Amino acid sequence: MTNQRQLALEYAQKSHEPFLKQLIALCEIPSISTEPDAKPDMLRAAEWIAEKLTNIGIENVKIMPTAKHPVVYGDYLHAGDKAPTILVYGHYDVQPADPLELWNTPPFEPTLKDGNLYARGASDMKGQTLAGIFAVEAILQQDELPVNIKFMIEGEEEIGSPSLDDFIAKNADLLECDLALNPDAGMLGADIPTIPYALRGLAYFEIRMQGPSGDLHSGMFGGAVLNPANELARLIGGMHDQNGRITLPGFYDSVLEMSEDERAELARLPMDDDYFYYLTGAPQLHGEKGFSPVERVGARPTLDVNGFLSGFTGEGSKTVLPAKAMAKISMRLVANQRPDEVEKQLRQYLEDNARPGVTWEVITHAGGPPSITPLDSDGVKALAAALETVWGKKPMYYRVGGSIPVVAQIQTILGSPSVLTGFGLPDDNLHAPNEKLTLAPWFMGIDALIHFFYNFGG
Amino acid sequence: MTNQRQLALEYAQKSHEPFLKQLIALCEIPSISTEPDAKPDMLRAAEWIAEKLTNIGIENVKIMPTAKHPVVYGDYLHAGDKAPTILVYGHYDVQPADPLELWNTPPFEPTLKDGNLYARGASDMKGQTLAGIFAVEAILQQDELPVNIKFMIEGEEEIGSPSLDDFIAKNADLLECDLALNPDAGMLGADIPTIPYALRGLAYFEIRMQGPSGDLHSGMFGGAVLNPANELARLIGGMHDQNGRITLPGFYDSVLEMSEDERAELARLPMDDDYFYYLTGAPQLHGEKGFSPVERVGARPTLDVNGFLSGFTGEGSKTVLPAKAMAKISMRLVANQRPDEVEKQLRQYLEDNARPGVTWEVITHAGGPPSITPLDSDGVKALAAALETVWGKKPMYYRVGGSIPVVAQIQTILGSPSVLTGFGLPDDNLHAPNEKLTLAPWFMGIDALIHFFYNFGG
Repeated sequence: MTNQRQLALEYAQKSHEPFLKQLIALCEIPSISTEPDAKPDMLRAAEWIAEKLTNIGIENVKIMPTAKHPVVYGDYLHAGDKAPTILVYGHYDVQPADPLELWNTPPFEPTLKDGNLYARGASDMKGQTLAGIFAVEAILQQDELPVNIKFMIEGEEEIGSPSLDDFIAKNADLLECDLALNPDAGMLGADIPTIPYALRGLAYFEIRMQGPSGDLHSGMFGGAVLNPANELARLIGGMHDQNGRITLPGFYDSVLEMSEDERAELARLPMDDDYFYYLTGAPQLHGEKGFSPVERVGARPTLDVNGFLSGFTGEGSKTVLPAKAMAKISMRLVANQRPDEVEKQLRQYLEDNARPGVTWEVITHAGGPPSITPLDSDGVKALAAALETVWGKKPMYYRVGGSIPVVAQIQTILGSPSVLTGFGLPDDNLHAPNEKLTLAPWFMGIDALIHFFYNFGG
Repeated sequence: MTNQRQLALEYAQKSHEPFLKQLIALCEIPSISTEPDAKPDMLRAAEWIAEKLTNIGIENVKIMPTAKHPVVYGDYLHAGDKAPTILVYGHYDVQPADPLELWNTPPFEPTLKDGNLYARGASDMKGQTLAGIFAVEAILQQDELPVNIKFMIEGEEEIGSPSLDDFIAKNADLLECDLALNPDAGMLGADIPTIPYALRGLAYFEIRMQGPSGDLHSGMFGGAVLNPANELARLIGGMHDQNGRITLPGFYDSVLEMSEDERAELARLPMDDDYFYYLTGAPQLHGEKGFSPVERVGARPTLDVNGFLSGFTGEGSKTVLPAKAMAKISMRLVANQRPDEVEKQLRQYLEDNARPGVTWEVITHAGGPPSITPLDSDGVKALAAALETVWGKKPMYYRVGGSIPVVAQIQTILGSPSVLTGFGLPDDNLHAPNEKLTLAPWFMGIDALIHFFYNFGG
């Protein structure tokens, strides 16, 4: 082990307290990208990141505007032409915190309990973003960096990164890299170092349906007209068949089926039924017939209602026949599905099945293609070695059910592969009340990233 | 025409302005019975009615508490033992006003426009309640009443009158009558005097469904568990078959089918497809196959979603797999269905069809049996003659799609028939934004009720 590497690791070990304090400060900023009124908080979070990068010696730090929320950029390019360039990705935005009443502690007042930090964004992904920054800080305190490094920290990940495609295309020269490091994935368990090799894509829609021109008395008019809430429910009900397969026309046509070898690999993961029962608390697991839960969440597409609203939803009763019904519906996609293809299938399904007693429109909220990362790339190998050094065991490779559109964007626009990592755990309550980050694997993750930079820099 | 009758009619004619002012004052009180915080406004409305009754000479006026909102009682029993006793029913509570943004003028700031009074409750039924009181006022100003009269004005009609059953049973002696006059029905058009002879019943439920124990990330867990919003939508979708018939087990077993004569009678009503298109603004009429719209809204049972809520329903996107889904669902019942029977059928349907990936509960919010009123009773004849005198044409008889549980309660507990009337119009936007009362038929209705009391008193 080089002396520099050792010194960097020692710096990181001694810095647990300031690292945690800084994470708390960042989590106190309610940077909810979907919130129309959150612009000042978004900017505050971006400025916090920019100041931090500047403080550790990163150069050319700038807050670069986009159509919506800015991207924080910075670089340190002193490793020489022969050294590789790594683009470190992160996002400073977070999911909404509602329903607030289900949080045990306020989402934007980070709270330490039993070795966990509870806060919206602690795990997804302010913690992961800072892990990368802290690893670079630890190396820069002692030595020059063994790689050239660029940071691209965006503010729109939780709304599907609508500006990032354009941003990467416009700044392709600035962002040019040999490899992107994306720590927005997670671990399967605190003692299971993990490298995800596939991500699901996302296609997120809102269906707005209208029946009568205004709300009606359900007694005087019930039986005369089609109720848009009944009709939207029926249409959603029909989007799955009895075997849990999605019925949108052609939905499975471009799905890349798993090989038997891959299924055998996934079957070795420590993610049996009990694991999913523990994490979900569901009375019974459920999904597409013929596939295991680990296959269904990683390698099979799904369709979920994310929200449904119609009529009177307050306390008590109101005998209204509602004029409108709305559902937010999203599909998780697997290679080689495409969001635009799925949108066409959804529209076709509605055209084929919605009855003339209602009118409807489909609004596209967010989307990103699925991706599969090559396992034999230098970056994955450097990361695997780093994880093995810190955890003392070989990592597991698996498929992530979530979506990281930027991985596909960097592949498509910059032509660079990404390696995925991250030190959050499956029970971190991402996108849900009581999100938390478990500190022990997070601190180990900072060490692992230090190793990764040295490994990859040769 | 007796001189007294003539004098009462003249008084009513001269009093249009003060009548309207008083209606406006009552409509300014937001007496929303389903609103947990509306207790003070409910009491204010009850007190307003009690004071009005006292002012016109009604005796024994009292605000009688119930488990929820009080009933206003008063009587005037000086017509002698041989004269019949009429129980005049009314309700001072109103529906919620939301969605507020769809009102052209504030719901509790009554606004006159083009001969209509716009306000929540103007038609349903503060206007109708006052029409009965004003008719009695007009007679009492000039003469003794030709009938014994009792008022029972409740405050829970819009939440299904949960306390009224008990109230009527406990006060059966006080409320004893030969006939109940219930002006909570309406007219088919401003120049179509109308007597409804049947009412649909109501069975109103809330289904609460839970899948996972907390909200989940739809990427990490989509495919592992049953989404309760998807499942509730599917179950609701399955509650109707392709012919628009309700699939709850045994749902039609006790439905009294119409005779061919009755269907011919209903076919003569001026309620063709265009009428329903005009009133609903629906792109296409829809309902149970084999029945006309007028049959479907009056003589056939229906099942409507009144509200549906699950997951994230704000602006933008949130990739949540919701833990819970809720739907308010109500059935309109026809003779001889019973709400408790329908509740069993709903529970049976859910037991048979809901999958083990979710748990559910059914909450019963409101219910009332359907009823059919005898057309050959003295009360109906007296009312028919009164309407013919004022409008110059025979009334039409039809079936009301809405529910008036008190009609069945009075029949069951007191053994007294009800006659139904009311001077609201089908486009009054009951239970919807921009509720209004058209004043011309309302003033004619006050005259008609004066005739009715004299006709029935002999």
